Amino acid sequence: MSISGKNLIAGEWSGETVNGFTAFNAITHEAMTTTFADATESEVNSAIVQANDAFISYSQLSPSKRAHFLRTIGEQILALGDELVTTACTETGLPTMRIQGERGRTIGQLNLFADLLDNGEYQGVIDLADQNRQPLPKPDTRLGYLPLGVVGVFAASNFPLAFSTAGGDTGSALAAGCPVVMKAHAAHPATAELVAQAILTAIEICGVDKGVFSLIQGKNYAIASQIVTHPLIKAVGFTGSERVGMILQQQINQRPEPIPFYGELGSINPQYIMPEKLSKETQAIAQDLVASLVMGQGQFCTSPGVWVLIGEETDEHYQEFIKAAAQSLSEQPAGVMLTPAMCQTYNNAIAAREQVAGVSLLARGLSGREQECSATLFSTDFNTYENTPALHEELFGFSALIVRCDDFAQMLKLTQLLAGNLTASIHALDADLDVAAQLAQTLVHKVGRLIYNQMPTGVEVCASMNHGGPFPASTNIRTTSVGSEAIKRFQRPICYQNMPQALLPKALQS
Amino acid sequence: MSISGKNLIAGEWSGETVNGFTAFNAITHEAMTTTFADATESEVNSAIVQANDAFISYSQLSPSKRAHFLRTIGEQILALGDELVTTACTETGLPTMRIQGERGRTIGQLNLFADLLDNGEYQGVIDLADQNRQPLPKPDTRLGYLPLGVVGVFAASNFPLAFSTAGGDTGSALAAGCPVVMKAHAAHPATAELVAQAILTAIEICGVDKGVFSLIQGKNYAIASQIVTHPLIKAVGFTGSERVGMILQQQINQRPEPIPFYGELGSINPQYIMPEKLSKETQAIAQDLVASLVMGQGQFCTSPGVWVLIGEETDEHYQEFIKAAAQSLSEQPAGVMLTPAMCQTYNNAIAAREQVAGVSLLARGLSGREQECSATLFSTDFNTYENTPALHEELFGFSALIVRCDDFAQMLKLTQLLAGNLTASIHALDADLDVAAQLAQTLVHKVGRLIYNQMPTGVEVCASMNHGGPFPASTNIRTTSVGSEAIKRFQRPICYQNMPQALLPKALQS
Repeated sequence: MSISGKNLIAGEWSGETVNGFTAFNAITHEAMTTTFADATESEVNSAIVQANDAFISYSQLSPSKRAHFLRTIGEQILALGDELVTTACTETGLPTMRIQGERGRTIGQLNLFADLLDNGEYQGVIDLADQNRQPLPKPDTRLGYLPLGVVGVFAASNFPLAFSTAGGDTGSALAAGCPVVMKAHAAHPATAELVAQAILTAIEICGVDKGVFSLIQGKNYAIASQIVTHPLIKAVGFTGSERVGMILQQQINQRPEPIPFYGELGSINPQYIMPEKLSKETQAIAQDLVASLVMGQGQFCTSPGVWVLIGEETDEHYQEFIKAAAQSLSEQPAGVMLTPAMCQTYNNAIAAREQVAGVSLLARGLSGREQECSATLFSTDFNTYENTPALHEELFGFSALIVRCDDFAQMLKLTQLLAGNLTASIHALDADLDVAAQLAQTLVHKVGRLIYNQMPTGVEVCASMNHGGPFPASTNIRTTSVGSEAIKRFQRPICYQNMPQALLPKALQS
Repeated sequence: MSISGKNLIAGEWSGETVNGFTAFNAITHEAMTTTFADATESEVNSAIVQANDAFISYSQLSPSKRAHFLRTIGEQILALGDELVTTACTETGLPTMRIQGERGRTIGQLNLFADLLDNGEYQGVIDLADQNRQPLPKPDTRLGYLPLGVVGVFAASNFPLAFSTAGGDTGSALAAGCPVVMKAHAAHPATAELVAQAILTAIEICGVDKGVFSLIQGKNYAIASQIVTHPLIKAVGFTGSERVGMILQQQINQRPEPIPFYGELGSINPQYIMPEKLSKETQAIAQDLVASLVMGQGQFCTSPGVWVLIGEETDEHYQEFIKAAAQSLSEQPAGVMLTPAMCQTYNNAIAAREQVAGVSLLARGLSGREQECSATLFSTDFNTYENTPALHEELFGFSALIVRCDDFAQMLKLTQLLAGNLTASIHALDADLDVAAQLAQTLVHKVGRLIYNQMPTGVEVCASMNHGGPFPASTNIRTTSVGSEAIKRFQRPICYQNMPQALLPKALQS
């Protein structure tokens, strides 16, 4: 399929502007040939107004028809074939296998929400009338769920499919009955356009109102601001950095009408290696952590960024762990980052960390081409960590910081210092169980997912998943952006009182 | 029991300040004798810090122990006996029967949450591991719920018991496992102190950490600001005016860490009288609406403030309705408002509305003593309503505005003009069903509760209730402040992955 470089505005490909931008080949760092049109103010407004015009009819589509629409989007994404994979690999530098896997996950997520709709979940609660209740009769009340309205979604750089155009936010919003205005990520605009073509085909096949989905391209920050402050936007989904997320949050705070902002921002994902584990499985845990760290050059929001353990600096097991981890990391190949800018940001952050007093660079991975970055492993002690706020921040990429605590009390104190995280793991043997239980009492309030003896990378898409957590992991601690529960972000309760059957949604009829 | 005029700070009665305030007798408008101490900055901070210190131990209390605590609070409120009723009546001007009923509702709400905990609801989802899944094994993941942390609650003026010290926000937060720092309403501080005494007794009986509940008195706006911006406050519940609610919202927006703000603000609760209903049950519907309007001097957030109907000005049924409503309203007794300030605000708003071009004062209720207000009924037409934004705002008290539409198209257009509401009612006969269905398609997106042939006043406390709605009815459209679901406001999901049984909460163990 050919790439137009245009915006998809309610079924029409539109490129009014003379301004545009190009994406970069993530592997060569060269600018690519296609120019993408920055959406104009009137295009963005038209997308949102037409989405709102489509809202009531789309919200009334039966759950089974919405399920069919979601499945059809998945089929059309698959029908894009190798072009989608090649395009995404070129724009992001991610390997073919990873993009193929992510495509499977994306389609799987759409089908998960389709299954949810077909199985009639979230149908609500029915409390029948009781005319004889004293002192007053009880009315018939039935709790249902309504979609919120038009949802603005911002694509992520690090998941060009699963957290982008037809990713989890789009899938859950469409499943809930909300039209979506999608802001593509400027790092992978062609991938976005291909997926938008698939969605448009699905809209045509299913006869859905074309206002239900628009794709906004652009590298112009005013576009983001226009979307999140538009009065017809009723919720916003975002996956990205804390810095950009907080800019959006502040703009949303200026709105007269508060709306939910679902920002999934970032995380250091602390890994706790308990004493018995450290002494009995020293080599294995060091190597497993390195393997989790370097996956996708660490460009996951669940990458294990801080490793916490207990030991004197001269302890045999501590030394052995450090040596094994450093050895393993030093053998890791270099790799490209998602964008040239991220490569630069990563290298700058590494250079800055090397200068922090009390922090040592333990190991650096293999060097590669000029466009590639190398993995890094740092170490420090609890006191330095406690007194150096810069170390508490996420360093996006395949770099980890080992924090040595003198004793368990320091490990607990470190846990209290933590900001919110998407995940934390406790690595332990049975003999560690008592201290692990103590640790978990505090740690559980710092994370959205608490893991035992597994790595944080890899987020299962299922009904019991939570991908979110206390700020700054997420701007909305009460919701998940992955798994079936994600649909609830775009629904709200409504009580129908004493309503005739004909005026009730099917799921609430007697 | 004697009233100390002090703050309850984690089990200690404290009145550090030299500043204080007195409440007013709502019936005589005279200042009362007890001076209440404005909480100082250090008292407020101490309450919040001690609440946070109590958080982890309280959050780990078993559901059945939390249920016992809630039931004991209810028993202790009842044990306050007539003094509570007399005090609340004096401070609010509400009649004895109403306060007795509200006390029953308050205890009923606490017991509802206790039942919820005893029945083990909201236990989450368990997805077992599958080692054989391809391409990767599925880990064991279990979804549970954790309390958010310390909750700040602001008492309402119009429900001195059910939405105040031990009201729905406090009950649902305590049920969820969150300590509560309660800001009493300055209009009923003695009522608040009595209920706080009951809570303290329950804390002592149940052996709960005293940090779990504090009562903050004060007429000093800095106190509210300190509570909502304190870093250890993790959620805020508020019931009150849009004006005050938005001041709190703006202060919360300044926090580095976003937290949920559950503001239940206000509503005009539009009442739609459909054509057949208007023509066949003209007198009855007019009288029923007046009866709902004047309950408690209209000081309910669900008071029916705008009545919408279709008819030429000269139509027989329209004329008959107007005449019946005016007649009924003119016979309604005067009554005191909750506070002298509210009486003044109501009278000013009525005087202003009388001056609006295109609006007629149809009737005024009986006059009373100087401290009493009279009910009022206004009428206007669709065009005036459309072009007069002041008419779209809530007028708190027993005043309603009849809006005459020329046809059904105007009625639909009016519905689109509406801001969010807690409720709307459609009053109709079977022959109205088709137009009612058309109306409901738009109206449902403007309200939190849609009612058919019943009045909006009276909020059922049950599992299927929703008391909330689109802004400005509520600042958080996705939640209810009444009914079992209210507990979810103070909980958040957590996924436990591959966790040993000993580290799982009981409800999630296999």
